[in-house]
Amino acid sequence: MRLRNVKGANEIIEKSKYIILNPESKKSNWNKVFNNENPINIEIGMGKGDFIISMAENNPDVNFIGIEMYDSVIVKAIEKLENKNIPNLRLIRMDARLIENVFDKEINIIYLNFSDPWPKKRNAKRRLTHERFLNRYENIFKNEKVIYMKTDNTHLFEFSIESLSNYGYKLKNISLDLNNSDFSGNIMTEYEKKFSSRGVKINRLEAYKD
Amino acid sequence: MRLRNVKGANEIIEKSKYIILNPESKKSNWNKVFNNENPINIEIGMGKGDFIISMAENNPDVNFIGIEMYDSVIVKAIEKLENKNIPNLRLIRMDARLIENVFDKEINIIYLNFSDPWPKKRNAKRRLTHERFLNRYENIFKNEKVIYMKTDNTHLFEFSIESLSNYGYKLKNISLDLNNSDFSGNIMTEYEKKFSSRGVKINRLEAYKD
Repeated sequence: MRLRNVKGANEIIEKSKYIILNPESKKSNWNKVFNNENPINIEIGMGKGDFIISMAENNPDVNFIGIEMYDSVIVKAIEKLENKNIPNLRLIRMDARLIENVFDKEINIIYLNFSDPWPKKRNAKRRLTHERFLNRYENIFKNEKVIYMKTDNTHLFEFSIESLSNYGYKLKNISLDLNNSDFSGNIMTEYEKKFSSRGVKINRLEAYKD
Repeated sequence: MRLRNVKGANEIIEKSKYIILNPESKKSNWNKVFNNENPINIEIGMGKGDFIISMAENNPDVNFIGIEMYDSVIVKAIEKLENKNIPNLRLIRMDARLIENVFDKEINIIYLNFSDPWPKKRNAKRRLTHERFLNRYENIFKNEKVIYMKTDNTHLFEFSIESLSNYGYKLKNISLDLNNSDFSGNIMTEYEKKFSSRGVKINRLEAYKD
């Protein structure tokens, strides 16, 4: 997506009640942020937030945290939240490479939706399912490690199946054409709505590791 | 494929020098059949044999055994072999469910090409990558367990990725569109030639387990 500079983005972000500005300070205490003991799921690279906002609205007994690096995109998510009150949702502006500084054994599920495929081999380590990231995720999970992934990028999906299975994840509920599968209750991202409507096939997997 | 009765099939099969009629009697002694210590790779469900015949011709230092249950199809493979002399190839007519009676710690790679997808859930245990078959394969491998699989059937491929990864196999070199991938040296089956030429996408994977 085109990442325009949004004038005043920083001010909008800092004013939002959804944004956690110093997420490192909440490490090991995220349940206190939500003031409950419900499970906490995160989306890394939430983009404009359609997915995580719908998930939070539809699942009030689960806490959701959307993570995004780019100000110009986070601002769009904040705009969507302006007239909503969703107590089980928070947003973090951060680089996912630093995720270990923010969470410690407190996450149930990581969602990766339409992550940047980084198609060039020399950039493989930037893919969110690369071994380097899987290492970073190891200690943020509370119990079983669970990753739900969707992408329309064939090469990223091939890479992810290999990377996850080689890291010891078991793969389940794989779909190579999500919109023609028997998977129900799919919540679409902005990107997914646009490309699915053009007939692009969406791949999805669930990965589990003890 | 349509399985016609072939008149005299039994006689043709029994006369072929490529056919091993009592494969159970060769268990633990397949290297003696080939009179060498080269690795032995098998294809389960070889159909009319195009793949296994080409593999044997192209790789004289590897032994190949094609396994097929249906007389009417094996006969087609034998016909193709009539004027050839391929010392590193043998064929077996058998039901793959009995494979443990035939091999004992002597196989390097299992090839599964365009296996019957058995689309109905109640028939899932007949799929050649079902846990029941993976159990049967456990003791036929010499060292590392290696399965190379190709299929145009999306659901069989999804099922196989799940089944293999849950059984402890690591997946490598996955391709969701083999003919537009950088995989080189693909040898096509009869079926694959026909469907690839119509633009059907071929899926391929390699699975490894210690």
